[in-house]
Amino acid sequence: MNFASDNAYGAHPAVLQALADCNRGAMMGYGADAVTEAAEGAIREMLQAPDAVVRFVATGTAANALVCAQLAPPGGRIYCHEDAHIETSECAAPEFFAHGAKLVTLPGPQGRLAPAALADAIRRGAGGGLNGGPNALVSITNATEWGTAYAPEAVAALARVAHDAGLPLHLDGARIANALAWLGCAPADLTWRAGVDALCLGGTKAGAMAAEAVVFFDPARAEGFDYRRKQSGHVFSKQRFLAAQMLALFADGLWLRLADRANALAARLAAAICDAGGSLLAPVQSNAVFAAIPAEAHRRASAAGAIYHIWPDRSAAGLDPVPVRLVTAWDTPEADLDRLAALLA
Amino acid sequence: MNFASDNAYGAHPAVLQALADCNRGAMMGYGADAVTEAAEGAIREMLQAPDAVVRFVATGTAANALVCAQLAPPGGRIYCHEDAHIETSECAAPEFFAHGAKLVTLPGPQGRLAPAALADAIRRGAGGGLNGGPNALVSITNATEWGTAYAPEAVAALARVAHDAGLPLHLDGARIANALAWLGCAPADLTWRAGVDALCLGGTKAGAMAAEAVVFFDPARAEGFDYRRKQSGHVFSKQRFLAAQMLALFADGLWLRLADRANALAARLAAAICDAGGSLLAPVQSNAVFAAIPAEAHRRASAAGAIYHIWPDRSAAGLDPVPVRLVTAWDTPEADLDRLAALLA
Amino acid sequence: MNFASDNAYGAHPAVLQALADCNRGAMMGYGADAVTEAAEGAIREMLQAPDAVVRFVATGTAANALVCAQLAPPGGRIYCHEDAHIETSECAAPEFFAHGAKLVTLPGPQGRLAPAALADAIRRGAGGGLNGGPNALVSITNATEWGTAYAPEAVAALARVAHDAGLPLHLDGARIANALAWLGCAPADLTWRAGVDALCLGGTKAGAMAAEAVVFFDPARAEGFDYRRKQSGHVFSKQRFLAAQMLALFADGLWLRLADRANALAARLAAAICDAGGSLLAPVQSNAVFAAIPAEAHRRASAAGAIYHIWPDRSAAGLDPVPVRLVTAWDTPEADLDRLAALLA
Amino acid sequence: MNFASDNAYGAHPAVLQALADCNRGAMMGYGADAVTEAAEGAIREMLQAPDAVVRFVATGTAANALVCAQLAPPGGRIYCHEDAHIETSECAAPEFFAHGAKLVTLPGPQGRLAPAALADAIRRGAGGGLNGGPNALVSITNATEWGTAYAPEAVAALARVAHDAGLPLHLDGARIANALAWLGCAPADLTWRAGVDALCLGGTKAGAMAAEAVVFFDPARAEGFDYRRKQSGHVFSKQRFLAAQMLALFADGLWLRLADRANALAARLAAAICDAGGSLLAPVQSNAVFAAIPAEAHRRASAAGAIYHIWPDRSAAGLDPVPVRLVTAWDTPEADLDRLAALLA
Repeated sequence: MNFASDNAYGAHPAVLQALADCNRGAMMGYGADAVTEAAEGAIREMLQAPDAVVRFVATGTAANALVCAQLAPPGGRIYCHEDAHIETSECAAPEFFAHGAKLVTLPGPQGRLAPAALADAIRRGAGGGLNGGPNALVSITNATEWGTAYAPEAVAALARVAHDAGLPLHLDGARIANALAWLGCAPADLTWRAGVDALCLGGTKAGAMAAEAVVFFDPARAEGFDYRRKQSGHVFSKQRFLAAQMLALFADGLWLRLADRANALAARLAAAICDAGGSLLAPVQSNAVFAAIPAEAHRRASAAGAIYHIWPDRSAAGLDPVPVRLVTAWDTPEADLDRLAALLA
Repeated sequence: MNFASDNAYGAHPAVLQALADCNRGAMMGYGADAVTEAAEGAIREMLQAPDAVVRFVATGTAANALVCAQLAPPGGRIYCHEDAHIETSECAAPEFFAHGAKLVTLPGPQGRLAPAALADAIRRGAGGGLNGGPNALVSITNATEWGTAYAPEAVAALARVAHDAGLPLHLDGARIANALAWLGCAPADLTWRAGVDALCLGGTKAGAMAAEAVVFFDPARAEGFDYRRKQSGHVFSKQRFLAAQMLALFADGLWLRLADRANALAARLAAAICDAGGSLLAPVQSNAVFAAIPAEAHRRASAAGAIYHIWPDRSAAGLDPVPVRLVTAWDTPEADLDRLAALLA
Repeated sequence: MNFASDNAYGAHPAVLQALADCNRGAMMGYGADAVTEAAEGAIREMLQAPDAVVRFVATGTAANALVCAQLAPPGGRIYCHEDAHIETSECAAPEFFAHGAKLVTLPGPQGRLAPAALADAIRRGAGGGLNGGPNALVSITNATEWGTAYAPEAVAALARVAHDAGLPLHLDGARIANALAWLGCAPADLTWRAGVDALCLGGTKAGAMAAEAVVFFDPARAEGFDYRRKQSGHVFSKQRFLAAQMLALFADGLWLRLADRANALAARLAAAICDAGGSLLAPVQSNAVFAAIPAEAHRRASAAGAIYHIWPDRSAAGLDPVPVRLVTAWDTPEADLDRLAALLA
Repeated sequence: MNFASDNAYGAHPAVLQALADCNRGAMMGYGADAVTEAAEGAIREMLQAPDAVVRFVATGTAANALVCAQLAPPGGRIYCHEDAHIETSECAAPEFFAHGAKLVTLPGPQGRLAPAALADAIRRGAGGGLNGGPNALVSITNATEWGTAYAPEAVAALARVAHDAGLPLHLDGARIANALAWLGCAPADLTWRAGVDALCLGGTKAGAMAAEAVVFFDPARAEGFDYRRKQSGHVFSKQRFLAAQMLALFADGLWLRLADRANALAARLAAAICDAGGSLLAPVQSNAVFAAIPAEAHRRASAAGAIYHIWPDRSAAGLDPVPVRLVTAWDTPEADLDRLAALLA
């Protein structure tokens, strides 16, 4: 009963099959191969973005941090939610890759940035002058770290704030498949048509082994990016194996079907929690459930082996109800969900 | 009528005289000179810290950022007040020097960190594990960015929290002269006896031209620091000229007399503001006054050429009363203060 | 006919099978899983180093650069061969990860460092004092970038020079399998028994998809390494898939058998080149052949589709004979080798 | 008898007087003052470069490293002489500021880069592709680290090589005053008219206390530079004191007169060494003498207290003759020179 994270689950069989399929003979390394070319093309097509620059890395932290570094000048201020993955869960990777950028964090209900608060923060940042550092970019996550989803118009509202200040908008899409599946909109609508300038397109949580795509919709923003990626050790010599994973996920919309399944499990889990006297801390709009559950239920579930995180303060103790995060994945067994529901009830 | 900052004023004549006095003939460069040796010794003596490692740099940003880098491991979390100079006014220098450390900022009334809140934040940080990064150090400022002063026991309370978690305590002492003058305590009592591990001892705001000392009370913490300082361009070839400034300031307690004067001016200014219908936003315990003044008085003063900052949001507009920061210095003319007082009344 | 690099070939079927085998159900992420534990243990056992700290990353550049950063203080001087991979082929990754370390390169016949020249360079470096930066570490590659192998005693001689100067010895073992297969010695003899302090144990070129191990023989040297790895985006969430590759390679000595095959092909190729009027530029002691071949033979081979690099100056033109590098791999088809031999003849 | 370096001497009295002259009342900090404006203007005028961006820092290492960082993309290759100050004497500052740039060093007689060798190195660098990193800039020093001077046409020849490859040319002008004094040409002729894109204009060795100017002839290259400078702690709050030093040096050509004196002393010293049986290792075209002197003379001079460096290997021992570097300064006493000459004879 593992609900700790969607990355606790493995890779979809189609992903492993794709690895085997491309494991024939020699190809040039470092991305100069046909599989990489095909996968980059598939993503451009999926995004309806024929000019976009697409590159693959193996981890979401690498993807996010490389994009932040690419977009942030020295001392640059990166605006994000206080619970953003880049702030809480990447061991200061953006600051490292960007050589000392500063993450300026903002509160916001249910993991979402509010356009007015963002605009105000950016204005204050500009007022800081040389001392405060230059405004650099805005970063959002979709689906958010609280399992909610920004609809296209919500993204567009934040993009307008960013662009009005001359800043690009980065989207951490580690779970964009889940957002897309929940919203039912086109990838283009949730990204570049809404004003996203750089996208980290998550494969790992969506069913890959370890594969993420970085997408710059304006090629000019990607200048020098390949060297940056190489210098940080994120160019694979046998690059085809990264690309093949992504190709498998995007073929026939597999990734969205997998996300849909995970979302549906989360919705069922949320219902079970509410039935059992728990209450949701955020609406369930992707594959994560944030809920306050009775301490007694929490003890029961934990004792029976259910794995999930107390949230957001993982080391909090003695609370009743207990705030928790439960994440479903493409491969979470339904039986586990049923069993957890029974334990909580 | 410049109350924008204490660094708007020049150097004390004794500082300039000291430059002239040591401007004779040849000395070995990079700190291997007698003036540097004497100045390091004077600071050790003043601090009653015979084993301390003392080094000079020219800017407070360099001093703070080098210390943060020295004490923080990769991805390290640096706990500080949300208004700390290292957070608001150094263009992400600590993040840059420390190659991607993360400043974890905490609110706190009147520029002060609260021990309990600090302890809680450190505990949460530890709970973040690999993702959150390692806890690295605690940084405080004294006098604080809101003109208040931590007494020795207040420093000690924060030091205990830091040390209990295995973290060193850094003190940004850009205005420690003002704090010492206000508190009337010994430098040792406000620093190492209270648990401070690394001190940035401000000379510039205290009356130097451009000189700060970095002090590591435990020499083991200074290992490799000279290379770090050199690599960042903060070792002067004609190092005697940095050291001479500090020697002049610390001779006969000059720096404390200058701080005392600045503090007294601030107290007078605060009284004048209160008389004129303004209200203090923080008690005046050093050389800065944070007050809300009537918009009409603000307009009058500004129109007459008084210079100071709206605070903390420098670009805020349309407020009444107007929150402002006014800083006095060792050289602020009394006449300017009288004139400003008259304008505000 | 791809002889460009051993990383032009794919992964051994056993590696892919291992991925499938561990692709069952949920495991905790970021390395807290049984596969990772088993793989770390297998490597410790293979190296007869029960206390060693073993960690996995996906690229050799990441492995080398992380180790350099771990071992180098600010401004640190890293001594290596002028043709070392860390110097020529990692886009300044060591300098980036180590925040400005300096690679001090030394010539040396056939890719090997000479102990006396190394000792002299280290002595000169020490003489540079603050300006020159601190001596940090010595890095060697085995098999070298010229296809030669250091025998245990040769490694030990260099280790003595390093250790006498208080410096640790790093071994870039991207092709250590080939060196071991050629030398026929135990991994322990070629590493820690010979004085190696940190080892990058190559999996990718040995038949993995993308997997390298970093090994610190003294756990004290690994302090903070996990944060460093995390901060650079090189901790995989589904870490088992890195570990599984390594487990497969080290089971039953598979990696050595594969290296042996590649070495044997290289030896055959070398013989064919000599028969065809070419001459070796270095003895063939692993899976790479460095040779000067007649320009006419080069044109013939290239026209027929043989892929390999002119070396070391890849963009050199108009030479006769043509200096080339040809690399064989665990999966290079014998038919390709026969065909190339025929073309060259 | 200090001939160790020109930075062993102090500041010209006019420099100290300028500090006193501007030490009146309040000015805005961080460069927003009239002295800074005047000094920037004076340098633009002296260089006949009305559009140039001029900024002040306190050390040559800061100046050089900030420019390298400003001009180098991630992983960038910086071409310079193997004896360049940025390579030998800045503790890897350029690598640090540029977050991992790589200095590609070239030999060259008497401290000079040869255009053909530079062109070849750049071509090879381009051939390295992603692995080798992007070509970034060319850096030269004038006067060179061997006391020789590039004439304008020699600079122009190197600039052509750089520009043909699309690279900017950086000039480390720590001793450009000495080169100008020796060559007798206009500063514009030796800099931008010869193709220099970024200049580090040395004040410290020329007679300042600690002041250097960074000059970007094309303002577009300076974008974001102020933040970069601030982030590294090299913006002074009391900036006027940096600017005033430069103003004093450039008034009435003082810096060139001082350089001329130092050059003349060096010429006299060189003649004395030759008379005494020594031989020059490079022609004396500025204020440094590189010579091989009899070991007996060296012992005599050292025993009598003469200070200078064995060169370039400072820790070399037992040589006869002894290769040495002797540097004269604006303030080297003639009597010291006479005494040294007598000792060597």
